[in-house]
Amino acid sequence: MVATSTLLIILELTGTFVFGLNGALTAMDAEQLDLVGVVVLGMLTALGGGIIRDILIGALPPATFRDWRYLAVALASAVVAFVAGRYLTRVMRSINLFDAAGLSLFCVTGTSVAFAHGFGPFQATILGAITAVGGGTIRDVIIRRVPTVLTSGLYAVPALAGAAIIAVALDLGIYSTAVALAAAIVCFAIRLAGLRYDLNVPLARPRNNKEATEDLDP
Amino acid sequence: MVATSTLLIILELTGTFVFGLNGALTAMDAEQLDLVGVVVLGMLTALGGGIIRDILIGALPPATFRDWRYLAVALASAVVAFVAGRYLTRVMRSINLFDAAGLSLFCVTGTSVAFAHGFGPFQATILGAITAVGGGTIRDVIIRRVPTVLTSGLYAVPALAGAAIIAVALDLGIYSTAVALAAAIVCFAIRLAGLRYDLNVPLARPRNNKEATEDLDP
Amino acid sequence: MVATSTLLIILELTGTFVFGLNGALTAMDAEQLDLVGVVVLGMLTALGGGIIRDILIGALPPATFRDWRYLAVALASAVVAFVAGRYLTRVMRSINLFDAAGLSLFCVTGTSVAFAHGFGPFQATILGAITAVGGGTIRDVIIRRVPTVLTSGLYAVPALAGAAIIAVALDLGIYSTAVALAAAIVCFAIRLAGLRYDLNVPLARPRNNKEATEDLDP
Repeated sequence: MVATSTLLIILELTGTFVFGLNGALTAMDAEQLDLVGVVVLGMLTALGGGIIRDILIGALPPATFRDWRYLAVALASAVVAFVAGRYLTRVMRSINLFDAAGLSLFCVTGTSVAFAHGFGPFQATILGAITAVGGGTIRDVIIRRVPTVLTSGLYAVPALAGAAIIAVALDLGIYSTAVALAAAIVCFAIRLAGLRYDLNVPLARPRNNKEATEDLDP
Repeated sequence: MVATSTLLIILELTGTFVFGLNGALTAMDAEQLDLVGVVVLGMLTALGGGIIRDILIGALPPATFRDWRYLAVALASAVVAFVAGRYLTRVMRSINLFDAAGLSLFCVTGTSVAFAHGFGPFQATILGAITAVGGGTIRDVIIRRVPTVLTSGLYAVPALAGAAIIAVALDLGIYSTAVALAAAIVCFAIRLAGLRYDLNVPLARPRNNKEATEDLDP
Repeated sequence: MVATSTLLIILELTGTFVFGLNGALTAMDAEQLDLVGVVVLGMLTALGGGIIRDILIGALPPATFRDWRYLAVALASAVVAFVAGRYLTRVMRSINLFDAAGLSLFCVTGTSVAFAHGFGPFQATILGAITAVGGGTIRDVIIRRVPTVLTSGLYAVPALAGAAIIAVALDLGIYSTAVALAAAIVCFAIRLAGLRYDLNVPLARPRNNKEATEDLDP
């Protein structure tokens, strides 16, 4: 039990750190923001998913404000990105890797936290996926991109896959560190495959353009 | 009493379904999203208003996560839109009709739920209108449109009108199924009139453009 | 004690009023919205920060819906802006002054409320700053501007400075009306200096543009 919750906090803080790196580096790329902008967008990306989860679960105030380590780690990640951004992106090749890592870790922790608050496996899976995609969605809305969760088929799907593994394992009583890591790896692998091979789920058949335009007129 | 709450859940789930159709069809029109994008935007539109309401009321976790039917209906609406989108839009002529229907149903249920949680008629009216416009506002922010509630005069007004009828009826103790349906019809009729005749409330007098531009400089 | 909470509510309602003016005038400038749009954006700007604070603190329903004066003052500010907008902007020269005033008042009240709910000085400072920047951030997201908190270095910084003064004073037990006003003035002065002299915190070093573009590809 102690081991499980130690694992959980390690995964949470690691996820917070990598999401913070991604958000801060996004701020440096996309908008040429100053230090404060980089820190703010890094922290929003790092902490957004967990805050949304805790609000929906009703676990208020969110863990972010109950445990100082969340704020400290999020702040540290943004500062690291600000100072070492050029080096980090050269080593990692793509800041999407940080996002994929955060996605994988947060679908595991989000589902576990929801389950611990008494949600059934179906709801816990949805809440886990919301935790995983929440921070990146806030990031995208704030910098005025269409959120990745809408445009990239393999963003919600790996989050749901990882979350479902955790939810089933918890429901069957076979949750362990190995299961947690396996779920994170499954999510990470699907996300990476999607990024590398530009895989997607079926596209909606486009409707007649003229119709579509008319429909959108208010 | 049982009848009232049965009515409430029927109106809620119907509203969820039509908002889900609208959100999913919007995703298919506006952004050529894939299946996951369509489902995500459909579910956000369908469930967003109720989730905002439950957060503001403090009824956490939101009904969306306490009652599996909300998630199921929202998911179903998005799948129906994905499969039958072309047919649906041909029959309905405008996807705004779905939005108007959701608006009408959610202003009724949102006000009722707020009243049941002890809010006075004024606050219940505001919360009912927020429930009604919330899902569409989230939809618009996510796909980067200026929200309908800002640009279309007769969007907040019919929601407030329907909500006020319910709040007054509940306050006077004369709430009934007939009142609920009447309020929904009033809201729907005002919204449709606004859409059809392009009715609007008074425009703000434009200020001198040069001034305005200067003021907006940060 | 009575005096302190009377002071708090006066500062809150004054902050609500000036943020409402700013939001409503922004709506009139930026988007040529009608009366309803002006009122909605004014109220969102006025009430958004406090609502976010109360959700994060877990003080639900938010003060906005527990005390009718918030809704009334926010509504009044939007109506005043709609009626007297041209006159107001001529006298004040820049609607950013209203925003700066709201920022200064809300960092004081947000921190005080967070402290009263048992948060430590560090968390109370963060929550105070979130209260201060929240309404303007919602306003910017809704009208599709990159939020001021990201682009203007001296927006979060003055809010954090004012909030920190209050948090330290409360922690040391030396909080008084004079301290509250001093913190607000410090915040206001820093914000104004930033606006007037276009001061900023250090810019992130731009990375190689080609790299950056590749990284952003999903």
